[in-house]
Amino acid sequence: MTVSTGLSLHLVTAEGLPTDTLCAIVDAAVDGGVTIVQVREKTASARELIERTVRVSDTVAGRAAVLVDDRVDVVLAARDRGARVDGVHLGQSDLPVEVARRLLGAESVIGLTANTVEHLTVAAALRAGTVDYLGVGVIRPTATKPDHPKPLGVDGFAALAARTDIPCVAIGGVRPDDAADLRAAGAAGVAVVSAICGASDPRVAARAFREAMSR
Amino acid sequence: MTVSTGLSLHLVTAEGLPTDTLCAIVDAAVDGGVTIVQVREKTASARELIERTVRVSDTVAGRAAVLVDDRVDVVLAARDRGARVDGVHLGQSDLPVEVARRLLGAESVIGLTANTVEHLTVAAALRAGTVDYLGVGVIRPTATKPDHPKPLGVDGFAALAARTDIPCVAIGGVRPDDAADLRAAGAAGVAVVSAICGASDPRVAARAFREAMSR
Repeated sequence: MTVSTGLSLHLVTAEGLPTDTLCAIVDAAVDGGVTIVQVREKTASARELIERTVRVSDTVAGRAAVLVDDRVDVVLAARDRGARVDGVHLGQSDLPVEVARRLLGAESVIGLTANTVEHLTVAAALRAGTVDYLGVGVIRPTATKPDHPKPLGVDGFAALAARTDIPCVAIGGVRPDDAADLRAAGAAGVAVVSAICGASDPRVAARAFREAMSR
Repeated sequence: MTVSTGLSLHLVTAEGLPTDTLCAIVDAAVDGGVTIVQVREKTASARELIERTVRVSDTVAGRAAVLVDDRVDVVLAARDRGARVDGVHLGQSDLPVEVARRLLGAESVIGLTANTVEHLTVAAALRAGTVDYLGVGVIRPTATKPDHPKPLGVDGFAALAARTDIPCVAIGGVRPDDAADLRAAGAAGVAVVSAICGASDPRVAARAFREAMSR
């Protein structure tokens, strides 16, 4: 992983927004302190996702890392287009992380969703350097992912994060005033969707999270 | 493209079948003369699709080519697992074929869906060797793909196939007794789903198509 900006504040993009709208949000959010932008669009075609990733990458312009949710081939295709795309975030039913690491190389960023003790046990058995961070959640109930697992709360997050040496990023319903508690609970970062994408001022919203994480 | 067995009879796998059932159908169909098996499973996770592709590849055991629908990363992941997977079939909204060719290398098989004059014009502008065949259809109405475009019929297929030097494979509602007409219309092959996957004896069904294509 080569992200000097760190893991502290991930923006996962809201789905279904026009690309121009999304890029305006991303621009403001990165300006406000987002360190990683994950492009997520579950129902888009590969070609739409490539286009959106290239546009987001152009908008970010190296100020933050850019990841793509799920699709390793879209990462490769966007890079083929000349975009700077740092890596991929994978869920438990996506490509195995070992395979993604071989396809993307040692310098890419690879994140893995891990919401249970079993997920953490499997992740702990991976060769060091296979994944750069684990996305652990959800913290609170959230409308972004209606089928989310039972919320962990800060205590549940702490219990999972204590089981691994891999940096854990808290995701799902995280509020700015959770950030200090999550940091104390061992979070390397927090990831948000609607708290920034749905904010009236994404720059201000991002700054509130970033400052809370820096305290 | 290194498929010595040719393009004459593609089996596109029916979706949602248990893998054991599917592999039994594939085994019989390849025995009956199928030359390319395309693994298609639009709603499966990447991990399920990798698993299914590896199992199909083991079943085919080199007797036919094996392609994966849509997902270049699944091809790469299945190869990483040691499976012989020959390439990918891409739709118009999937990864661009030039990118897929760079990712998969010159020896892989890459097919592209092309159902309109516009698609053929774009395909004709590709560098030679970028795609190995075009999937052109649908020929007749088919329940397999409820959102299919207006059926071309044999004459419509002939009109499209005449516009390109790339081998054209007829797909969509093709019956064995269409095969001779489609060959006369310039088809390098035919592709079927339910006519083999739904047949009481997939070996006999495949043989009927293969013989019709060989006449």
